[in-house]
Amino acid sequence: MTNNSKNSISPKTVERLSLYKRFLHEQIERGSGFISSRQLAAFSGGTAVQVRQDIRVLGYTGSSKEGYNIPQLLLSIDRFFSAAQCRRAILAGVGNLGQALLINFSQRDAFPEIVAAFDIAEDKVDTVIHGCRCFRRTEIGEVIKDQAISIGIITVPPDAAAETASLLVDAGVTGILNFAPARIKVPDHVYIEHVDLTVTLEKVAFFACTTTY
Amino acid sequence: MTNNSKNSISPKTVERLSLYKRFLHEQIERGSGFISSRQLAAFSGGTAVQVRQDIRVLGYTGSSKEGYNIPQLLLSIDRFFSAAQCRRAILAGVGNLGQALLINFSQRDAFPEIVAAFDIAEDKVDTVIHGCRCFRRTEIGEVIKDQAISIGIITVPPDAAAETASLLVDAGVTGILNFAPARIKVPDHVYIEHVDLTVTLEKVAFFACTTTY
Repeated sequence: MTNNSKNSISPKTVERLSLYKRFLHEQIERGSGFISSRQLAAFSGGTAVQVRQDIRVLGYTGSSKEGYNIPQLLLSIDRFFSAAQCRRAILAGVGNLGQALLINFSQRDAFPEIVAAFDIAEDKVDTVIHGCRCFRRTEIGEVIKDQAISIGIITVPPDAAAETASLLVDAGVTGILNFAPARIKVPDHVYIEHVDLTVTLEKVAFFACTTTY
Repeated sequence: MTNNSKNSISPKTVERLSLYKRFLHEQIERGSGFISSRQLAAFSGGTAVQVRQDIRVLGYTGSSKEGYNIPQLLLSIDRFFSAAQCRRAILAGVGNLGQALLINFSQRDAFPEIVAAFDIAEDKVDTVIHGCRCFRRTEIGEVIKDQAISIGIITVPPDAAAETASLLVDAGVTGILNFAPARIKVPDHVYIEHVDLTVTLEKVAFFACTTTY
């Protein structure tokens, strides 16, 4: 995959491929062998045309009258994601949200895998939290370089977010997932995704009322 | 605001208005009086044209050569959100993620405010966690009806998510924020937003590698 072909893949397609993967795993557990684009669309909330477009991105061509062969399609999606060499992540800020993420992503087979955590609290430093070693904040740069980590997850308080992002980027991180309610500027070569829980909850509150007017 | 006019407002506009609100509060703290659509665009990562369109949705017309009057614009945005009568939320599942949300949204002035939590763990039931009373799972319907709650936040494990959503909807909830990695079907009158941390992290991992090919 070249840089150009990868740049042309939309984040929404990548999201849906990740969703399909989960659904296909569920189908395998249920003993299904084949699946149609319509079934995948029903699960993901999209259209069958969109599903077929997404699957074309994989280069997968194995559809038949019965639909897609589930194990083969899964293999294609796994290859698509594992082509990404960036599977090692660090987590900055081991509060409740940080710990929830550690529980889910500090296992060996997680993708990405959180391999190190950071905090400023002395009682957390040098302990293992949900299977993940917690380092001192000042060690961030060293650990990222030593372990060739390319993904950073920011769960620090908002006023520490920008500085934390700078530390990550300076050490070589190229993908950031930011949970702090603060807009962070990063260089063009860094991919950043913001999950803003306040904004999301306000939006849900706003639309929850649609039916009551 | 009529049901129709509200339905025509896009979720993206509502998200951005929530973001502008935060930024305007910061500007007031810094003593600024006016702000341009360009400055708001720079903060939100959009365009000045988009900012002006968003602000037109508010019915706000007070721009001048100096830009928008910040206190007046804030008042307009606050009115826009407070027109929504749905400000009371419940949280189902008091794990680490649930507790992170309680810390942020169980205060009196939070919008929306989490007014009740639910869990199946006996050691949590009938206790107060981060300022929020935790009820027994079987009490969900009663509490939602008694307290006229319209927003539900789902932070239970994936295999309990669909059943939890049904309980919420049956009791009258019309807006759901779902964190469980499970697709949930709800009736058309219910607004649902999924925050899927696995999918989001996989996406960041994928694009973190763009520059390394």
